[in-house]
Amino acid sequence: MAAKKLLILPGDGIGVEVMAQVRRIIDWMARKRKIEFEITEGLIGGSSYDVHGTPLSDETLAAAMAADAVLLGAVGGPKWDDLPFDVKPERGLLKIRKEMGLFANLRPATVLEALADASTLKNEVVAGLDIMILRELTGGLYFGQPRGIDTLPDGTRKGYNTLVYTTPEIQRIGRVAFDLARKRNKKLCSVDKANVLECTVLWREEMIKLQKEEFPDVELSHMYVDNAAMQLVRNPKQFDVMVTENMFGDILSDCAAMLTGSLGMLPSASLGEADAQGRRKALYEPVHGSAPDIAGKDMANPLATIMSFAMCLRYSFDMAAEADLIENAVKNVLKGGLRTADIMQPGKAKVSTTVMGEAVVREL
Amino acid sequence: MAAKKLLILPGDGIGVEVMAQVRRIIDWMARKRKIEFEITEGLIGGSSYDVHGTPLSDETLAAAMAADAVLLGAVGGPKWDDLPFDVKPERGLLKIRKEMGLFANLRPATVLEALADASTLKNEVVAGLDIMILRELTGGLYFGQPRGIDTLPDGTRKGYNTLVYTTPEIQRIGRVAFDLARKRNKKLCSVDKANVLECTVLWREEMIKLQKEEFPDVELSHMYVDNAAMQLVRNPKQFDVMVTENMFGDILSDCAAMLTGSLGMLPSASLGEADAQGRRKALYEPVHGSAPDIAGKDMANPLATIMSFAMCLRYSFDMAAEADLIENAVKNVLKGGLRTADIMQPGKAKVSTTVMGEAVVREL
Ligand SMILES: CC(C)[C@H](C(=O)O)[C@@H](O)C(=O)O
Ligand SMILES: CC(C)[C@H](C(=O)O)[C@@H](O)C(=O)O
Repeated sequence: MAAKKLLILPGDGIGVEVMAQVRRIIDWMARKRKIEFEITEGLIGGSSYDVHGTPLSDETLAAAMAADAVLLGAVGGPKWDDLPFDVKPERGLLKIRKEMGLFANLRPATVLEALADASTLKNEVVAGLDIMILRELTGGLYFGQPRGIDTLPDGTRKGYNTLVYTTPEIQRIGRVAFDLARKRNKKLCSVDKANVLECTVLWREEMIKLQKEEFPDVELSHMYVDNAAMQLVRNPKQFDVMVTENMFGDILSDCAAMLTGSLGMLPSASLGEADAQGRRKALYEPVHGSAPDIAGKDMANPLATIMSFAMCLRYSFDMAAEADLIENAVKNVLKGGLRTADIMQPGKAKVSTTVMGEAVVREL
Repeated sequence: MAAKKLLILPGDGIGVEVMAQVRRIIDWMARKRKIEFEITEGLIGGSSYDVHGTPLSDETLAAAMAADAVLLGAVGGPKWDDLPFDVKPERGLLKIRKEMGLFANLRPATVLEALADASTLKNEVVAGLDIMILRELTGGLYFGQPRGIDTLPDGTRKGYNTLVYTTPEIQRIGRVAFDLARKRNKKLCSVDKANVLECTVLWREEMIKLQKEEFPDVELSHMYVDNAAMQLVRNPKQFDVMVTENMFGDILSDCAAMLTGSLGMLPSASLGEADAQGRRKALYEPVHGSAPDIAGKDMANPLATIMSFAMCLRYSFDMAAEADLIENAVKNVLKGGLRTADIMQPGKAKVSTTVMGEAVVREL
C-alpha cells in the first residue's frame, strides 16, 4: 500500500504545541501498526504571513492539494489583528477550504461520560449527548459575490455580502447529510430561515426533494435557525444529525460545542467531493481556536487535535479500528483522572500538554 | 393630557388569549391610575389573511402609524404554513416593523429569582441574569436587495439574499445601544463577524467611531457571533448590553431567552426613530411565538405579554412607576407559587391563562 501523504499545518498559538503531541500518536501508529505516513509540514495563518507575507502561500496550497489529508492546528492571534482584511490569518483558513473544495464540515458535539459535569448545563440535559452538525463550508455569506464596502456619492458608506446557494451546492451537502444520518439514527434536521430568506426557501425545497427521491428511509425535519439555537439549549438530545448553511453552521456548531463544556475535546473534519475512487480531499482540525493567551505555556489541551487525527484515520484512510484505538485511549486517560487546565475538575490531576500527549501514547 | 392611543393586535394562536389578560391590566390602569387609553383592535398574521387575504391590511397599518404604541400577540401557525411566501403570517410582522421604521428591537433576558431553576443551565450560571440584547430590526439580510430565486439557463436554480447596512443605519442602532448601556452598567458588547464579512467590518468601524466621538464614557467590546453564541452558554453574566445586526440578533436573542428557561416570561420592544418631541413609534410583543399546539386551551402564559405592556408604559409613556407596579405584581404572583404549565415546578400551583391574569390584577 502506498504511503499516506499527510500535510501538517500547526498554524498559530497553541496549534504548534497540540500538533507536537499528535506527531507522537502518528509515530506510534507508524511504528506499532506499520502504517506508512509520508509527512510534510507547512505554514498557515499568522505564522505564514510572518514568513511569506500571506496567510496561505502557493506552496502550502499545492502541498495540501497533493496530500491525502491535511491536519491543521489553529490560526490567528492578537499579533495579526491589525492586518488588512485580505491577509488576516483567517483568510488563509477560508482560502484553503475554498481551494480544496471542502464543502462538508462535520462537527460532532459529544459529551464523554468522564466530562459531563464540565458543562454549564445540568447533567441530565447533556449526559450522553452525541450529535453531529454538518455545516456547509464553501458557500453562502462567506464566499458570495458581490461583497465589499462602497462609498456612495453622498459620502455614506455601504457594506454588503451575499448569501447565495445553487441547487447543486445544496444537493451535494444534502447527500452527505442524509448519508451521515443513514449511518446513525436515520433522523436529519435541516436548519434554515425559510420564513424570511428566499435563499433558504430553496435550501428547504431541495432537502425535501432529496429525501423523497434518494433517501426515503431517512426522516427529515426542518427547523428555523432561531428555534434551533433555542432547542440546542433546551433539549440538545432531541437531535441526531443537523445540516445547515455556512453562517448558521458556524454559530450553531459553536453553541453545540459549548454545551459539552469541553471545547478542548472536539474535533472536526472538512471533506470535499468524492473522486472516481470515492476518495475525498480532507482537512481535520480541532473546533477550538489558537488561544493566544495560553500559547507557549504547555497548558493547552491536545485531545481535540488528537481526536481530529482519529477522524482522519476513520474518514480518509478507512481505519476505523485505529481510530477506535485512539478514541478509547483518550477515554481511558480521562477515566484515569488526568486533566489539562481547561477541563480540570476537583479531585483530578492537572497535567500539561506534553504529559497529556504522553499519557495517550502510553495508553495506546 | 391627551388619551394614549393604543393599537392592539392579538394576532394568531395564543396571541388572542394572552392579549385578553393584558386588556384586564389596561382596564385596571385606566380605572385605578386614571390613565386614559384610546384602544383600537386589529388583525395581523394568519387571522388577517383569513379575512383580508393579506397578513397586514392597509387599515391595520394606518392604525399602527397613527397609534402611540402597538401591542402585538404573536403570528403564525400550521394552518397557514402552505401559503405562498408573500402572504405568510410572518410577512405581516416583517412589514409592520419595516413600515413603522422599528429599527431597534430590545430583548431583555432576565431570570427572576422564583424561576432560576426553570433553566436547563446550572443555577449558579444563570441566577440573577439580566442582559439586554439590542437587535437591529429593519435592515440586513431580512430586507436587503437583491433577493429571490432565479432559474439559470442550464436549469439549476440559485437562491440569494443580501446582507447590507449603510453607515446611517449602523449609527442609529449604535446610538440606541450606547444610550441603553449608559443607563445600565456602561458596558456594550457589539457582535459581528468582522473576520469574514465586509458588511460587519463596516459595522465594527462605525461602532468604534461612535464610542470615540459620542460615548467615551461607555466601554465598548467586540465579539464574533460564533464566540458570542458560545459565551452566552458558557457565562452569560459576563454581558450587560449586546448590540448586533438583524439575523445574528434573531439567533442570539432566542438563545439568550432560552437560557432563562422561561420563554413565557420575556417581553420585547421595537422602537423607531425619535421625532422632534423625542417620541418614537413603538411596538411591544412577547418573545414567544403563537404556540398553535396549546392555542385555545387557556394554558398559555400571559406574563410575557403583560410584561410587554409594562415595557410600553416605560418606554412609550414614561410611566416608570406604573411599569414597576406591573413588574412587581408579576414577581409577587410567582413568589406566591402560581405557575402556568410552561413554567410549572414541583410544589407549585398550576393555573390557567385566565387565573394567572386575574392573579396579576388582584396583586396590583
Ligand atoms: C476563523 C473563522 C474564519 C472560522 C469560521 O468562521 O469559519 C472559525 O470560526 C470556524 O468556525 O472554523
Ligand atoms: C417570525 C419571524 C419572522 C421573526 C423574526 O425572525 O424576526 C421572529 O423569529 C422574531 O424573532 O420576532
